[in-house]
Amino acid sequence: MSTSSHMYPMSSGHDQHSYIHNSSYQKAAISSAVEKTRRCIFEKLDLQLSSDFGTFRIADFGCSIGPNTFHVAQSIIDTVKSKRLEESTENSLVPLEFQVFFNDQPTNDFNTLFRTQPLSPEREYFSVGVPGSFYGRVLPRNSIHIGHTSYTTHWLSKVPEHVCDKKSMAWNKNYIQCNNLLEEVTKAYKVQFIEDMEVFLVARAEELVPGGLMIVIGECLHDGVSLYETWQGNVLDTIGDCLMDMAKSGITSEEKIDLFSLPVYFPQFSELKGEIEKNGSFTIELMETTSHPLEGKPLTNDFITSTFRAILTTIIEKHFGDGVVDELFCRLAKKLSNHPIDFEMRKKQVVYCIVLKRK
Amino acid sequence: MSTSSHMYPMSSGHDQHSYIHNSSYQKAAISSAVEKTRRCIFEKLDLQLSSDFGTFRIADFGCSIGPNTFHVAQSIIDTVKSKRLEESTENSLVPLEFQVFFNDQPTNDFNTLFRTQPLSPEREYFSVGVPGSFYGRVLPRNSIHIGHTSYTTHWLSKVPEHVCDKKSMAWNKNYIQCNNLLEEVTKAYKVQFIEDMEVFLVARAEELVPGGLMIVIGECLHDGVSLYETWQGNVLDTIGDCLMDMAKSGITSEEKIDLFSLPVYFPQFSELKGEIEKNGSFTIELMETTSHPLEGKPLTNDFITSTFRAILTTIIEKHFGDGVVDELFCRLAKKLSNHPIDFEMRKKQVVYCIVLKRK
Repeated sequence: MSTSSHMYPMSSGHDQHSYIHNSSYQKAAISSAVEKTRRCIFEKLDLQLSSDFGTFRIADFGCSIGPNTFHVAQSIIDTVKSKRLEESTENSLVPLEFQVFFNDQPTNDFNTLFRTQPLSPEREYFSVGVPGSFYGRVLPRNSIHIGHTSYTTHWLSKVPEHVCDKKSMAWNKNYIQCNNLLEEVTKAYKVQFIEDMEVFLVARAEELVPGGLMIVIGECLHDGVSLYETWQGNVLDTIGDCLMDMAKSGITSEEKIDLFSLPVYFPQFSELKGEIEKNGSFTIELMETTSHPLEGKPLTNDFITSTFRAILTTIIEKHFGDGVVDELFCRLAKKLSNHPIDFEMRKKQVVYCIVLKRK
Repeated sequence: MSTSSHMYPMSSGHDQHSYIHNSSYQKAAISSAVEKTRRCIFEKLDLQLSSDFGTFRIADFGCSIGPNTFHVAQSIIDTVKSKRLEESTENSLVPLEFQVFFNDQPTNDFNTLFRTQPLSPEREYFSVGVPGSFYGRVLPRNSIHIGHTSYTTHWLSKVPEHVCDKKSMAWNKNYIQCNNLLEEVTKAYKVQFIEDMEVFLVARAEELVPGGLMIVIGECLHDGVSLYETWQGNVLDTIGDCLMDMAKSGITSEEKIDLFSLPVYFPQFSELKGEIEKNGSFTIELMETTSHPLEGKPLTNDFITSTFRAILTTIIEKHFGDGVVDELFCRLAKKLSNHPIDFEMRKKQVVYCIVLKRK
């Protein structure tokens, strides 16, 4: 069974469980990276790029439904504008217009994205939606001046096929994720990650103008750390346990769980770095890791439950059918409350912030 | 009460009543104009326009949810490609990529548009959605090579305020449209039409590259013809009668009907021509009228009812509330069946086809 992640957007709409209201964990990480990327854009961007036609084009790949993507767009625009102001020359007197390309899978809720976006004049750009998987081209060659993606590339283009194959050495028995406990499973995920990262970078290299910048923000593991040792890995393993409990109660079946594995992979830092260096179309202008700004503060169980629910609802409903999600996250909340996560003891995922320049 | 047409997209989704399944009347007109516009694009388009960056950008303004908009995009692309092939020079050897901007109001159902679009390789273009009213800028300056709009500009940006004002001379008493029976009402609609057409053309002039083409297709009236004399005007007046009947049965109220008037205006041909000539940014490359290809064949009552239902559902629900639409179109069907439209006796609306070139 091949499970394409293209099909599983974040929770749509704007009810209490939607991604709109449950993306503050991601927002905190993006905000912490903003200052760094602002400085980097300021230093590295060549303003001549966009002088030909007076339009500066920005793309957010895997934008979901907001509001994080709107903050990202505005922050990039603010930076470009202040750089222009500082370097004010005759050229920069040509009024510059901004166009922001919001990209996500065709199953993303673009209606909500479009209906909740800031209005002019607060919104200082022309906004467009780009339906399509970023594991492939979604925009014309040489059309983007600054690309951005955050918290997206850990979603693989699909579940590696063998991890859902009971006859394979790489069968991910007893787990719903690559938590790095089973070597063959990790290897299969890694192969998929490498393939996807290559496709992602090749596509972005084509879409960016020479000199254009690509910002990539996400989470990875320190070298030598396994996902099961982190609190995030712990939560996902607990969700797997809840599903097993539900199978025992007959709410779902073990067979269904056996065939379920998340198309998600968190690389170790050196792995990620290796893949980016392998692609020869970019120079690496910035590549840093920092701890997540919420790391260290214990997160409430409610916060954890809602954050994971917003991320996983679509994919879980698709595989397990309707009516499982409420029960599942109810059980997760109970388990977390009986066995609170010891944040002190857990190893940390780290936030990485990468700025690439198209050669 | 100002009723902005921005808020009333065609019926969304893809059930039996949606615009997707009830837009063949519009499709027939567009198809009949296609050959004409193809020839005009072939003759008038300067292929050098897009040679700089290898991207050819097309926009469909007021695209709704398909499938007509996809045919339009593909037809324009086919024409550009065959022109390139015929004029094959060194320049045309640079591979050209196409990007199509699908524009409509933010309330349009872009999710359905994106999920029903043709897939690659059948779809030979990068597709993007542009949320925003075309009565204003929605795209950057100098960014579009060919713009297109069909069956859109008879939707005004709003209902002229005085036509819903009981104290005004221009109050549209007893009617729900500008059927040209009340002079003051017609005057008020005309003022709004002139204002909107100007805004539309100014915006498109900014968005098109110099030399770019703008195709405008729609319906208008022959000079001297009033809307109430046509079958379309007749159907809308009959819908108004049905509403009055429903008010008498207490399903809605006369007060509500008094405050309702469609933001729709069909100009006479010379009026339309005058407005286009007034805008100095374009040369007129083609401006023709033809009869609608379905004109002459009597349309079935079912066809008429479903076509008007797909167009009017959103605006009627918004004003009259839920649960009125089914009853209304049921009554329309009955009235049409009791008093069939005499297509022979009715005056004709005509399809116009205009191609403008940006100076």
